[in-house]
Amino acid sequence: MSLRIPTYADVETARGRIAGLAHRTPVLSSRTADARVGATLFFKAENLQRAGAFKFRGACNAIGALDADARKRGVVSYSSGNHAQAIAYAARLLDVAATIVMPSDAPAIKLSATKGYGAEIIFYDRYNEDREEIAGRVAAERGAAIIPPYDHPDVIAGQGTAVAEMVEDVGALDMLVVPLGGGGLLAGSALAAGALSPGCRVFGVEPAVGNDGQQSLQKGEIVRIAVPKSIADGALTPAVGRCNFPILRERVENVVTVSDEELVDTMKFFVERMKIVVEPTGCLAAAAVLHAKLDCAGLRVGIVLSGGNVDLPALAGFLAG
Amino acid sequence: MSLRIPTYADVETARGRIAGLAHRTPVLSSRTADARVGATLFFKAENLQRAGAFKFRGACNAIGALDADARKRGVVSYSSGNHAQAIAYAARLLDVAATIVMPSDAPAIKLSATKGYGAEIIFYDRYNEDREEIAGRVAAERGAAIIPPYDHPDVIAGQGTAVAEMVEDVGALDMLVVPLGGGGLLAGSALAAGALSPGCRVFGVEPAVGNDGQQSLQKGEIVRIAVPKSIADGALTPAVGRCNFPILRERVENVVTVSDEELVDTMKFFVERMKIVVEPTGCLAAAAVLHAKLDCAGLRVGIVLSGGNVDLPALAGFLAG
Repeated sequence: MSLRIPTYADVETARGRIAGLAHRTPVLSSRTADARVGATLFFKAENLQRAGAFKFRGACNAIGALDADARKRGVVSYSSGNHAQAIAYAARLLDVAATIVMPSDAPAIKLSATKGYGAEIIFYDRYNEDREEIAGRVAAERGAAIIPPYDHPDVIAGQGTAVAEMVEDVGALDMLVVPLGGGGLLAGSALAAGALSPGCRVFGVEPAVGNDGQQSLQKGEIVRIAVPKSIADGALTPAVGRCNFPILRERVENVVTVSDEELVDTMKFFVERMKIVVEPTGCLAAAAVLHAKLDCAGLRVGIVLSGGNVDLPALAGFLAG
Repeated sequence: MSLRIPTYADVETARGRIAGLAHRTPVLSSRTADARVGATLFFKAENLQRAGAFKFRGACNAIGALDADARKRGVVSYSSGNHAQAIAYAARLLDVAATIVMPSDAPAIKLSATKGYGAEIIFYDRYNEDREEIAGRVAAERGAAIIPPYDHPDVIAGQGTAVAEMVEDVGALDMLVVPLGGGGLLAGSALAAGALSPGCRVFGVEPAVGNDGQQSLQKGEIVRIAVPKSIADGALTPAVGRCNFPILRERVENVVTVSDEELVDTMKFFVERMKIVVEPTGCLAAAAVLHAKLDCAGLRVGIVLSGGNVDLPALAGFLAG
């Protein structure tokens, strides 16, 4: 596969493709959060996106970029959950067949939603099998297009539309803080911020146990780590993508990390004070800001809440803990 | 006290007064909910309003309507919770002293938020004392204005602004379904719908054990009942207000009821599928629609989610149950 690195022009194209498909999610604010940090915080609520996460944007854009022939042959993807749901849902809306390679321990809510959108599911063992290999084999058999969860220019461009909307809604930002798993959201967001809010400093946030992105930026090359365990199940990526890394390297000032405990505290804050459900992965950026991993004092800070898909029993456990 | 019945003109005035103070909350949608009911549902998310409920609108409008002299003498109110927080918060923003008469068993989250906004709190026993009498005595001592939770034209007019925004955002509605406690939200909503979406049928929803509003409409006069017990703690009103009833009688087609079990099911739906926290009272209207208490098939239905203030332990219990 040749490596095409997307630019902001691709984000603009994506905005046209996803219009009428993806929700324009609200930007929320909280006086309590602002007072806690001493900054003006803008929360882009992608937990309220269709299929419950920003992933729907990239999925729509990547499927929407396929020509009629490719659409007939269907799409194949692999994902720990939100991308799977997004591809399944976008494929259904665009009348394309979808096959998803999912880990056998994916959260039940993500599994049932993916099935509910009509996708075919193939399971794999997250700790012993290579999902990309499985997806590649299935795609070859069917002549289907592979839409990976983050290492793809159309996926990156689609994810960038959330921050483009946020800047359009609230104006220029001093700082942008974004969850980092494979780097689709962070790369797309950095492209949008660079074009629409020049001078905005961009930061990624990872779970402390899975700081491959942080290590990669420090080392200047993609660092691959053992698959970490964290409640941030959407950021359990061994390495950032190859299309993503050059963008991160150019446009992301730093990557910081947060603990699972800080993620739970942040989930509780969102439920109790802002009345929204944000999944652990979706809390990464907010947790970094609310737990003072970044100096935001006096700044206008954009924070992406990336998703809200969490099992009810798991959520009940987090809230009761 | 003379009885001034508000009209839509008062809702218009309120819109000007609350602009820049109250959030313009988003209108959310859910393909899953639409499919379940066979209708197009629009959820006005007042759980995302400042202080966590629509009450902030009426509070801003009522305090905003006071002249400079009256503002100096402060305001007194009584409330099971959300109105208390709203008055406390609005008073702080408008630099007015607030005293709130609250039931001693009010949810901890509502109590601490009210205190946090800087209001003075006077407790009473919900089942044995008359909060209006207590508030009246305090107001007389201080020369303060009483802002009751629903039986007041400026409160009603303020509450109507939520539905005015919703119709502006999504266009005309065939049906509007609104939680009913004392009737402030329902009366204001009915005024807005009548003016902005003529022909829209308006329904109120009460907890089954506290159907005083339903009885009142059936009998053609205000029926007072024993204070009911229900998880819908914001709708534990013994009777609808005197300013409210004439509007309900003229503009509300019917009042339907839901069980606590249906409210819990609806709370779970919002958390699991729409990623938002809606308190039991705030689920009343949605529960009626999702549990087929109203025939919505094929209609464009506006639903007001009135608030999101629920204790974390209580929410964890509901979600785990």
